Amino acid sequence: MASNHVIENISMNKSFGGWHKQYSHQSSTLNCAMRFAIYLPPQVSSGAKVPVLYWLSGLTCTDENFMHKAAAQRMAAELGIAIVAPDTSPRGSEVADDEGYDLGQGAGFYVNATQAPWNRHYQMYDYVVTELPALIEALFPVSNKRAISGHSMGGHGALTIALLNPERYCSVSAFSPICNPINAPWGIKAFTTYLGADKSTWPQHDASELMSKATQLIPAKVDQGGADNFLQEQLMPETLVTAAKASNYPLALAIHEGYDHSYYFISSFIDEHLRFHFEHLNESK
Amino acid sequence: MASNHVIENISMNKSFGGWHKQYSHQSSTLNCAMRFAIYLPPQVSSGAKVPVLYWLSGLTCTDENFMHKAAAQRMAAELGIAIVAPDTSPRGSEVADDEGYDLGQGAGFYVNATQAPWNRHYQMYDYVVTELPALIEALFPVSNKRAISGHSMGGHGALTIALLNPERYCSVSAFSPICNPINAPWGIKAFTTYLGADKSTWPQHDASELMSKATQLIPAKVDQGGADNFLQEQLMPETLVTAAKASNYPLALAIHEGYDHSYYFISSFIDEHLRFHFEHLNESK
Repeated sequence: MASNHVIENISMNKSFGGWHKQYSHQSSTLNCAMRFAIYLPPQVSSGAKVPVLYWLSGLTCTDENFMHKAAAQRMAAELGIAIVAPDTSPRGSEVADDEGYDLGQGAGFYVNATQAPWNRHYQMYDYVVTELPALIEALFPVSNKRAISGHSMGGHGALTIALLNPERYCSVSAFSPICNPINAPWGIKAFTTYLGADKSTWPQHDASELMSKATQLIPAKVDQGGADNFLQEQLMPETLVTAAKASNYPLALAIHEGYDHSYYFISSFIDEHLRFHFEHLNESK
Repeated sequence: MASNHVIENISMNKSFGGWHKQYSHQSSTLNCAMRFAIYLPPQVSSGAKVPVLYWLSGLTCTDENFMHKAAAQRMAAELGIAIVAPDTSPRGSEVADDEGYDLGQGAGFYVNATQAPWNRHYQMYDYVVTELPALIEALFPVSNKRAISGHSMGGHGALTIALLNPERYCSVSAFSPICNPINAPWGIKAFTTYLGADKSTWPQHDASELMSKATQLIPAKVDQGGADNFLQEQLMPETLVTAAKASNYPLALAIHEGYDHSYYFISSFIDEHLRFHFEHLNESK
């Protein structure tokens, strides 16, 4: 695996006294070149090592959507939090793909595919949990304090990854997550393709299944728009609430009347998420 | 001209307790269908009439760039300011165009074209100064207190429109404006095409020329990134500073080290611009 970390800078933009930067690197986990973005707050220029919020985006997104549209940099600069945004799947002409927007490139679903031809590149779970943080912590002025968040498919990714790795994250949050993918059309399509028709492996990547059985509890915050077109068919936040009750999980879930599935919703509440993570990133653990 | 205002809603997204909405309408000034966006802050839901900031975007932009990337809604919601973002040119298959990104559709330069074939549709000055505000003030819960701002080509538009119509605006601001288009490649190309090779009409649309002779003075704020690739060849803020000295114009212009021409720069300073306009929109005039 990647013992020496080589990354190439693609772009850099000063933002709120800090820097937004894009990099490419050859991922040994995904077997392809990958791009990610990092926001480094101004505190790093004085030598501070800052904690990191990993942001997992939704279907069709790249590293750019969050950095362009979420309006997170102002509060990240104020609090001194770095933000890392990976792409949503392996990419490239040699990488398997599908015509649908909800499968293949742009739709990695943050699992390790076991089915051919997907298993050659689609190992987003390992990439997000292991390879990317190792690279970030080796090359940037950050601490090993981590939080994780995401939107829609990325909200599913953030919740499942945190629930499976509670020792690696101080806190988890999500906007409009796919809370019960084993019972949602997006999840069923992706899991059938990447994990196979044998459903016995699916609950391992279902936030509601994992939360209902959780024993090591890290704080979780979920916000959902009440006017989200995908609310009932794909997202099902009520299953997550039921799961949290079963395990007495510290979940703060709120439905916000009138808000939809877009970044207009995310930007309206991102400051609250950053403050939530800041509080828990700075607890001794 | 448009005595009855007909607009069609295209989209709406709740944002910071207010609403982002896109509309299309048939512009009698531009002879084509036009799209614009409006952000209505939460104060309007209690019956308040709020002031309006008009935002003019730069080359290649539509109404969407500012609304997606500027992160202005948070402060607009806090202060109670509506924001209106028109498109940057007439649009459509029947509208004259050019292969360059800096001419034709997406590059209206906020002037009234006098040269064929451009003069049939390219009347962005009249659209922004007259038709659009009349429509906004007839159909939305806004007052007739107006401010104007913009970026790059739109910064040129905001400054020239405010300088030519000081009685219509309480304040003007710009990010990275084309300060002296009659001496800049972008401006020379656009003015030659839209206004003709006779340069005698050009200074009427040059912010530095207008500011140097201004007698009715409204507060102006300009911010410029020091690492902007277009700074020396296209933007020339020093000519605006010289012009302001000649007329003792109330111009506050700052160069910000390390910032580039992107929305990462705009979002870093948009709160300051909104506060600046808020102060002057609420002075009795």
